[in-house]
Amino acid sequence: MRVKELAGWLVATFEAASFEGDGDREIRRVMPLEDAGPEDLSFVSRGKAMKLAGESKAGCLLVPADYANDPPRTVIRTSDPRGAMARAILKLHPRIEPQPGIHPTAVLGPGAIVGHGVSIGPMAVIGAGVKIDAGSVIGAGSVIGDYVQIGKRCTIHPRTTVYREVVLGDEVVLHSGCVIGADGFGFVLVDGIYEKFPQVGRIEIGNRVEIGANSCVDRAALGVTSIGDGTKIDNLVHIGHNCRIGRHVVIAAQTGLSGGVVVEDYAVIGGQVGIGDKARIESRAVLGSGSGVLTSKIVRAGQVVWGTPARPLKECLEQMAVLSRLSKKRRSQEPGARSQNSGA
Amino acid sequence: MRVKELAGWLVATFEAASFEGDGDREIRRVMPLEDAGPEDLSFVSRGKAMKLAGESKAGCLLVPADYANDPPRTVIRTSDPRGAMARAILKLHPRIEPQPGIHPTAVLGPGAIVGHGVSIGPMAVIGAGVKIDAGSVIGAGSVIGDYVQIGKRCTIHPRTTVYREVVLGDEVVLHSGCVIGADGFGFVLVDGIYEKFPQVGRIEIGNRVEIGANSCVDRAALGVTSIGDGTKIDNLVHIGHNCRIGRHVVIAAQTGLSGGVVVEDYAVIGGQVGIGDKARIESRAVLGSGSGVLTSKIVRAGQVVWGTPARPLKECLEQMAVLSRLSKKRRSQEPGARSQNSGA
Amino acid sequence: MRVKELAGWLVATFEAASFEGDGDREIRRVMPLEDAGPEDLSFVSRGKAMKLAGESKAGCLLVPADYANDPPRTVIRTSDPRGAMARAILKLHPRIEPQPGIHPTAVLGPGAIVGHGVSIGPMAVIGAGVKIDAGSVIGAGSVIGDYVQIGKRCTIHPRTTVYREVVLGDEVVLHSGCVIGADGFGFVLVDGIYEKFPQVGRIEIGNRVEIGANSCVDRAALGVTSIGDGTKIDNLVHIGHNCRIGRHVVIAAQTGLSGGVVVEDYAVIGGQVGIGDKARIESRAVLGSGSGVLTSKIVRAGQVVWGTPARPLKECLEQMAVLSRLSKKRRSQEPGARSQNSGA
Repeated sequence: MRVKELAGWLVATFEAASFEGDGDREIRRVMPLEDAGPEDLSFVSRGKAMKLAGESKAGCLLVPADYANDPPRTVIRTSDPRGAMARAILKLHPRIEPQPGIHPTAVLGPGAIVGHGVSIGPMAVIGAGVKIDAGSVIGAGSVIGDYVQIGKRCTIHPRTTVYREVVLGDEVVLHSGCVIGADGFGFVLVDGIYEKFPQVGRIEIGNRVEIGANSCVDRAALGVTSIGDGTKIDNLVHIGHNCRIGRHVVIAAQTGLSGGVVVEDYAVIGGQVGIGDKARIESRAVLGSGSGVLTSKIVRAGQVVWGTPARPLKECLEQMAVLSRLSKKRRSQEPGARSQNSGA
Repeated sequence: MRVKELAGWLVATFEAASFEGDGDREIRRVMPLEDAGPEDLSFVSRGKAMKLAGESKAGCLLVPADYANDPPRTVIRTSDPRGAMARAILKLHPRIEPQPGIHPTAVLGPGAIVGHGVSIGPMAVIGAGVKIDAGSVIGAGSVIGDYVQIGKRCTIHPRTTVYREVVLGDEVVLHSGCVIGADGFGFVLVDGIYEKFPQVGRIEIGNRVEIGANSCVDRAALGVTSIGDGTKIDNLVHIGHNCRIGRHVVIAAQTGLSGGVVVEDYAVIGGQVGIGDKARIESRAVLGSGSGVLTSKIVRAGQVVWGTPARPLKECLEQMAVLSRLSKKRRSQEPGARSQNSGA
Repeated sequence: MRVKELAGWLVATFEAASFEGDGDREIRRVMPLEDAGPEDLSFVSRGKAMKLAGESKAGCLLVPADYANDPPRTVIRTSDPRGAMARAILKLHPRIEPQPGIHPTAVLGPGAIVGHGVSIGPMAVIGAGVKIDAGSVIGAGSVIGDYVQIGKRCTIHPRTTVYREVVLGDEVVLHSGCVIGADGFGFVLVDGIYEKFPQVGRIEIGNRVEIGANSCVDRAALGVTSIGDGTKIDNLVHIGHNCRIGRHVVIAAQTGLSGGVVVEDYAVIGGQVGIGDKARIESRAVLGSGSGVLTSKIVRAGQVVWGTPARPLKECLEQMAVLSRLSKKRRSQEPGARSQNSGA
């Protein structure tokens, strides 16, 4: 694709001024600034990237409106180089869609309904009464339980498990190894034996939810475990039974939610966070990576918390500073303190 | 099922007084208090539930013996409403068992022995010399390695891996994505290269053990990794090589045990706990969520610990309180302290 | 195998003096000291093992050169009993290699190239244009995406996913449930909606890398996620997009690396460590288990750090000691402090 074509397309579909430099230059792919060559597109946002831009061998750069193009090179100006890049990738690296159709090795249960243009990969196992709407893709080796409902244009990557009766909205993406709908962890100690509280609830996952590789979402004991529209979940995350997660929530890798946790819209949860039973994370709250939220705790709307137990970020930082200061003071006052401490 | 039939069955098999109210009312399923409608059964234990009970639209409630049924509604009294609910679920939502039989797409290795009533799902792969006892279910796409032994009435959910020679007891439940018997993590640095210490030990899993989705139990280097009868393990848990876990232990999600850890009977381990090599968690000890137990540390029988390094809960809370107090004191004494700290 | 044969083989291939005792004794397998019987080989290194050695019923022991063999038993002396044991295991428990050949149920895409002696298990799905070099093993139920390249003598255990275009070196081991090449977690909030930044980069994994069960390595957004030769990664680890991990790095279970993290050669990273975006862990640095490294932080070469935020181990221990001392002091000074704290 030539630079002038790309610039024209960005002007038409996104937001960009036209190009400067060699409009006939051929661009074949996108690359990071430091690795890009003469046939590659790259982008410059701010800070470190600005400095790297001068040395980059990229054939064309997406640059901010006020970029000092000196010495002049082939660039496309835009108010949002990163967003323009995301757009350009769609054009230069179009997503490779699998062919529609059901692979001959796939197994479909009785009463399964498969919409127009659906692709079902090799070795996939689709249960009885499953409904898969138009344009969805079920990857190789995935197992979809009885009576599951899958919306339109979903992508279920290979080797994913969806247990019986789970409901997925439209354009849901499940990465490989996800397990959606396993039993919640509910046991009661009776006469010295843990008896299982049967887990017979449901799961509802909204539109445009994306869930990372090897993450687990447990079905409800009673009632429902739900994830709202537009929420994005990273790899190896655990969502316990009866959690209710709102819309446009972000949850980074390896975070775990115990049972009955409520997370409201637009909350942002870092990686390796732990949230206790029935805690409530209100709208637009931010949980720093590694935080631990206690059982039944409420994190207020918009609050930024960190640490274990999770507390307002400022408070957490102050406590760290106080401890650091005391430790340094002690060290300077008592020369012998070091050797005593070494046994700690 | 009518209320009077349900009450009669609970009297006969569990423990309940008879019903009050409309014995002919038809009950079709179980639901949480807040979602239940006129054909639903729900239960009331204590605290918050008591308050919600008045507003619930449930057709019938399981209530404590001393429940003030005013204004009167249809209830069944019992000393343990939660336990009665677990019982009622078995009746109203009977577990759907897969049909016995071996799916024609499944592959069985030479010498595999399959007991009466066993179900093997589509695409399952069963190795040479595997023994599966009566009534067990192997889910779609699971891979069972050579010479594995599986006891009676086990449920191996879809897409589970059991490596060669692992031994499972009776009524074991493995959720989807589990990996039982991968190599332990044993490497020795020799001349600048990590050489693998071959992992040739075994795994023995007792009766009625349940292991959550995407959890991993590594085989022993030498000897055995063992999990005792009745132990329950949640999702995404890591059990390292040569761990010896006792009976009726509970381990919540995302906890990790390094190599050679011993956990004694009835210990309770929270979520996201980390336990160092060769630590010993004695009987009925409780590890709070997020704790970190150091290598070779012993947590004494019945002790409740928290924090990293894990220490007695009271001590941990006292230290937190002291730090909080110092930080507040400093803030009140030195008005400039805040701005200094902001750089921390 | 007789003791004298084993000793001869160790002299020839590793390093050992000859045996003492009964050279005709038959040894059949390896076992830990405490479980070994008269046909078992075991080894004695130091400390606790030395004490156990006297009571062991092992038929033969690998012992240090200076081992006081009193009362005398059948031993083989060596400067490295543990290393000799690893060697002996290869002889007594030879790895069972699957038969070369492609199982009739496996599905190969157009243009796949399979080298000499490759084994592809039942239900494996190999994409278009995949290249698998000589001697590699693809386990049952694994899914290998289009245009993946797999080097020589790799072991891809059952039920592993490798997404399209990933490149693996020689002798790579992937344990069951691994997901290599899923999309990185890159979303940008645009008008209240998280839009996906397309993840079109690559993954390159070097020679002799081993990755544990259910671990995830995400592909780069642009450019490459790379793991250097000889690096060993445990179970349930998350490697984010665009991480660059050096050679001979060790990463223990459940650790997570955010996007763009750089880890240099010979770094050692404990379990459940969290590393923020674009942090840099320099050569031979050591991160204690459970540490949290902040975004963009640099851990210097050879430094040993612990805690959250990760700081030099000595500093971390000093701070813990100071806090402990303050807490104890307060308790002794103020008898009422305990009851006040109980509300913390």
